Amino acid sequence: MFSYSVVGMGAIGGYYGGCLAHAGRTVRFLSHSDYQHVLQHGLQVDSCNGNFVLPHIDAYSHAADMPESDVVIVGLKSVKNHDVLPDLLRPIIHDDTVVILIQNGIGLEDDLQELFPGLKIIAGLAFICSAKVSPGHINHQCYGSINLGNYSCPDDRYHAIVQDLQDAGLQVGEVPYLEARWKKAVWNMPFNGMTVALNTSTDKLLKNPATRQLIYDQMMEVIGAARALGVEALDNTFADKMIQMTDEMVPYSPSMKLDFDFHRPMEIEYLYSRPIAEAKKVGFEMPKLAMLEAELKFIEARERR
Amino acid sequence: MFSYSVVGMGAIGGYYGGCLAHAGRTVRFLSHSDYQHVLQHGLQVDSCNGNFVLPHIDAYSHAADMPESDVVIVGLKSVKNHDVLPDLLRPIIHDDTVVILIQNGIGLEDDLQELFPGLKIIAGLAFICSAKVSPGHINHQCYGSINLGNYSCPDDRYHAIVQDLQDAGLQVGEVPYLEARWKKAVWNMPFNGMTVALNTSTDKLLKNPATRQLIYDQMMEVIGAARALGVEALDNTFADKMIQMTDEMVPYSPSMKLDFDFHRPMEIEYLYSRPIAEAKKVGFEMPKLAMLEAELKFIEARERR
Repeated sequence: MFSYSVVGMGAIGGYYGGCLAHAGRTVRFLSHSDYQHVLQHGLQVDSCNGNFVLPHIDAYSHAADMPESDVVIVGLKSVKNHDVLPDLLRPIIHDDTVVILIQNGIGLEDDLQELFPGLKIIAGLAFICSAKVSPGHINHQCYGSINLGNYSCPDDRYHAIVQDLQDAGLQVGEVPYLEARWKKAVWNMPFNGMTVALNTSTDKLLKNPATRQLIYDQMMEVIGAARALGVEALDNTFADKMIQMTDEMVPYSPSMKLDFDFHRPMEIEYLYSRPIAEAKKVGFEMPKLAMLEAELKFIEARERR
Repeated sequence: MFSYSVVGMGAIGGYYGGCLAHAGRTVRFLSHSDYQHVLQHGLQVDSCNGNFVLPHIDAYSHAADMPESDVVIVGLKSVKNHDVLPDLLRPIIHDDTVVILIQNGIGLEDDLQELFPGLKIIAGLAFICSAKVSPGHINHQCYGSINLGNYSCPDDRYHAIVQDLQDAGLQVGEVPYLEARWKKAVWNMPFNGMTVALNTSTDKLLKNPATRQLIYDQMMEVIGAARALGVEALDNTFADKMIQMTDEMVPYSPSMKLDFDFHRPMEIEYLYSRPIAEAKKVGFEMPKLAMLEAELKFIEARERR
């Protein structure tokens, strides 16, 4: 059994950290905004798999006060990776600490590794509908599996962590790193931005024939980029599969749409700019997603004004 | 001197028809919505070139009541070309009547010619900032020149009409048909749709570096399509020229943005679907403008609901 620290007590960190603590793991929670609340009231998880409450959790408001942990789960928005995350990580990692970035996008591990050359990093791709409805209160509606892609962790330690998470009751898959990241991008890149650009939800985008085709075209751009970068496990059928899966989902607001609705910064860099730049490096253009990136930057700049 | 009929008394028909009547030409105006008003009050044109009022104009509410004219100027929105325009034209054209379509888009002449095989058609591309501010009241802010591209008119008649319009004081240029249409599309396709998609104005699109580049990329798609279709007079420098011209313009809402703001149908077919389809026929893709087309169709469907 490993010791865990969870950085960010939102929909992701709150849910997975809560599950691990509920399963008896040592879990330290770092939360700036919700610290006072969770110290007094603990953590409540309403889940489609059964509700539970943790009346007392090991919560911290400053990383400097936390002990080092074997595994750090990062559930922050990626907009904080440059300015905030490095300072939060430094005090809580030891030489063998593994950091799992449960964040959306492409390029996150490259950037973090550059800052922490010896750090062991795993990419975490969560397939989950969950939301923080109030401080210390997570609503987990459905799904919940998580794919882990090994970026720079010794294989035995990677497998041991996967095993420990599975033992704690989580549904965890091992997927090659780049494949894990790009597979998620096939859904994320079209739907996150388009729901913001057209101020709508996934079901409405798929109901209109013009935007349904556009979403498909954008998925094919992601698949093309992934293949150009060597991810051969992805092919055209995956776009059909993602469209079909979304058809069967309840009307859904992706995380970027929620960020937009609540006037929070949008994760444009790692969700759009980086994957588009990575693809361009190997000569692959993503014109429709590049256009979406520009629209989002315009919308973001207007929001920040 | 020719006799003229003006179909549609909006910003375009009202202005050019008004100028022709003011210069002493016989001009018959067809107006459905403004008929009663202009019959009583005439036509008022506030123009940067000098205001004028025509207290009495030759106005009609039904095409069937109008005499045939030598030249018919169509200033209707192109969304009416399928269902409304043919019936308006039939009673007012004779064997030698020339129809000038002062409308935006690509494919307008092809469609009309198919319905009226013998008709003599000229494309009219207006470079003008004008608006109908109320029934029978046109506000002409600036510019006003018009390029005429000969689609299917005998050359001598085409030149004679250009001459007559120039004699009446209008600034008229003769430009090869396809070049005239596609040149205007270089500005129209990016700015009309993008001001709607991002609910903004031309100046704000150019102020943001991301959308400035996007507008440029979209202009290059139009230029590429035009060249693929044989319009060699258009090259990359024209995009720079159009961007620079727009930088120097006052903040501007293109006609599609006004249509959107006033909940009128948008000219998506001739401004987007047709040029994109024409380019595709010769193997040229316009991915960013195709994406804009899809976004506009989504927005239009939401508006019509």
